[in-house]
Amino acid sequence: TNALKIATIPGDGIGREVVPEGMRVLEAVGRKFDIAFQFDEVDWSCETYKQTGRMMPEDGLERFKKHDAVFLGAVGWPDVPDHVSLWGLLIPIRRTFHQYVNLRPCRLLRGTTSPLAGRTADDIDFYVVRENVEGEYSEAGGRLYRGMDDEIAIQEAIFTRRGVDRVLRYAFELAKTRKRGHVTSATKSNGIVHTMPFWDERFKAVKADYPDIETSQYHIDILCAHFVQHPDWFDVVVGSNLFGDILSDLGPAVAGSIGIAPSANINPEGDYPSMFEPVHGSAPDIAGQGIANPIGQIWSAAMMLDHLGHPEASAAVIEAMETVIADPASRTKDMGGKANTAECGEAIAQVL
Amino acid sequence: TNALKIATIPGDGIGREVVPEGMRVLEAVGRKFDIAFQFDEVDWSCETYKQTGRMMPEDGLERFKKHDAVFLGAVGWPDVPDHVSLWGLLIPIRRTFHQYVNLRPCRLLRGTTSPLAGRTADDIDFYVVRENVEGEYSEAGGRLYRGMDDEIAIQEAIFTRRGVDRVLRYAFELAKTRKRGHVTSATKSNGIVHTMPFWDERFKAVKADYPDIETSQYHIDILCAHFVQHPDWFDVVVGSNLFGDILSDLGPAVAGSIGIAPSANINPEGDYPSMFEPVHGSAPDIAGQGIANPIGQIWSAAMMLDHLGHPEASAAVIEAMETVIADPASRTKDMGGKANTAECGEAIAQVL
Ligand SMILES: CC(C)[C@H](C(=O)O)[C@@H](O)C(=O)O
Ligand SMILES: CC(C)[C@H](C(=O)O)[C@@H](O)C(=O)O
Repeated sequence: TNALKIATIPGDGIGREVVPEGMRVLEAVGRKFDIAFQFDEVDWSCETYKQTGRMMPEDGLERFKKHDAVFLGAVGWPDVPDHVSLWGLLIPIRRTFHQYVNLRPCRLLRGTTSPLAGRTADDIDFYVVRENVEGEYSEAGGRLYRGMDDEIAIQEAIFTRRGVDRVLRYAFELAKTRKRGHVTSATKSNGIVHTMPFWDERFKAVKADYPDIETSQYHIDILCAHFVQHPDWFDVVVGSNLFGDILSDLGPAVAGSIGIAPSANINPEGDYPSMFEPVHGSAPDIAGQGIANPIGQIWSAAMMLDHLGHPEASAAVIEAMETVIADPASRTKDMGGKANTAECGEAIAQVL
Repeated sequence: TNALKIATIPGDGIGREVVPEGMRVLEAVGRKFDIAFQFDEVDWSCETYKQTGRMMPEDGLERFKKHDAVFLGAVGWPDVPDHVSLWGLLIPIRRTFHQYVNLRPCRLLRGTTSPLAGRTADDIDFYVVRENVEGEYSEAGGRLYRGMDDEIAIQEAIFTRRGVDRVLRYAFELAKTRKRGHVTSATKSNGIVHTMPFWDERFKAVKADYPDIETSQYHIDILCAHFVQHPDWFDVVVGSNLFGDILSDLGPAVAGSIGIAPSANINPEGDYPSMFEPVHGSAPDIAGQGIANPIGQIWSAAMMLDHLGHPEASAAVIEAMETVIADPASRTKDMGGKANTAECGEAIAQVL
């Protein structure tokens, strides 16, 4: 069959509650647009780690390397250290599958409210493009004089020309598809003296290939301030692994959507599957109660559809999502409603 | 005489316009509280660099090492690369004088408005304590295969136990003087695997000496989001050089005071002078017109008075500042008023 093969990893906590809603919506939109899905679910999680000593089997990723996409819930649980759960599952997927772009829409949706005064949907509609596999998140570095008064810790940020150029190029290509066609580069070349001037050089070099795209550059400190003061300035914002990480939480926060924001970990060449996951975590405080908001997972499903060549189906999911959250009765508690996780997911599937 | 010896560096652009207003206010408050100042002004700047090839003389800092404080305007000009102007003047002062704390108040002042909806002065009143001499801003690192396709750039972040402990300790001591007594640590130990877990360990160790201080810890990405969503959660926020840099622009931005925010580069032991400077830069777009807002410089002067053992004089300056900006007629253009730089400074001096 030509069903889309989706590796499904509910993971931990509310991931297990929201992934089924994402699947429900995918099935619904699939019926409408004639798209078939084959979901291959695995129980890779902190629970698995506690039983087996591994977040996933050694050959885990081998099994999925020919799949069309990975659909992930959330990874992490209080009794397992983050470096185990994240570096044992999330980060290996990103890196093994060369998902070198992390893409996050920052949009003020109908039915949601920004914490910023007087902002409407027209003011906040941009993307953060984050470098997702190198840079500040490297395993290089270590300690000297461990445990002593003279102790020193070193972390190396490593940027390669290939790694920087390809994510910049992705940002410019994305900007070409947008009405405004503007790329903002996040830098800190006045403080970080080796890698950020290099980033700026590569930005200049790649920009030369896109004469129709307007650009701007800001140091990360003032850029964060501008996100709050002038979210309407931005269209596509590109940053390193760390800067992109920060901006892609701050962006949804100013848009009032941090609890419902989606993200895509993209392998643009398509030689390995891309991965789609909500921005929120496993939320131990509310896990198991069936009250988690499934919108982030469902919006991630919409990004997956778009990536897999079904833009109309993707748009239909987002449309249905916005319709449902415009109605307070179908919202979950965090958005001031009374619906539980399944009711919210079901309402969106119904609209489709 | 026992006049306070202040090294004054107007620097570039609007620095030259706002520093005199800071001095005017200092003279005024000095008359009231019987404090004498001896201002030793130097012309270290990008202009000087263009004439002499140096931002400051080789023995420049030697001349000021016994002074009580440094009062700085702004450094930087478009035709001089940042790494020249900043690493040739600002950063050497911070490092030579062991100003290992960068302190910035984030407060919603009377007469100003936050970009956040529904926030009042009671909601936003915290400090960012930034490590100011080590960490991510190091000169260690470099390039491999420069100019080639295989080019790699490496930046080393270097954290020492002594460097981390002393800034954490400063944050806890500051919290002891505050009503709430709460310290928040900015980390990223789930992504940055060598230095941030070390930071967390030292936070835990130092915290043990302050049983009465409440603490919290957040990863920098979600912490930035919380600044926007819950500025009322924070009292004293401590972070590394880079994280503190980001937070100390974002904090004033959410408080609506980025254009008027002050900062102190503090040597807590007092074996070298501390330095006080507004957060804003040299503002080439409005420099020379006499319309720059002097509040950031004047507020920095208030921080200097407090540091030099004159808390009442400091409070009087802030009080006068708030009185003046509450009146639209004495505000500068950026705050919706019509006053020029000198008129605004003069109004504050008058109130004193
Ligand atoms: C100008 C720059 C090097 C500096 C810094 O990052 O330290 C500035 O952003 C600041 O915050 O004082
Ligand atoms: C969990 C953590 C390692 C991760 C990251 O920083 O990459 C997360 O913050 C994210 O943004 O997906």
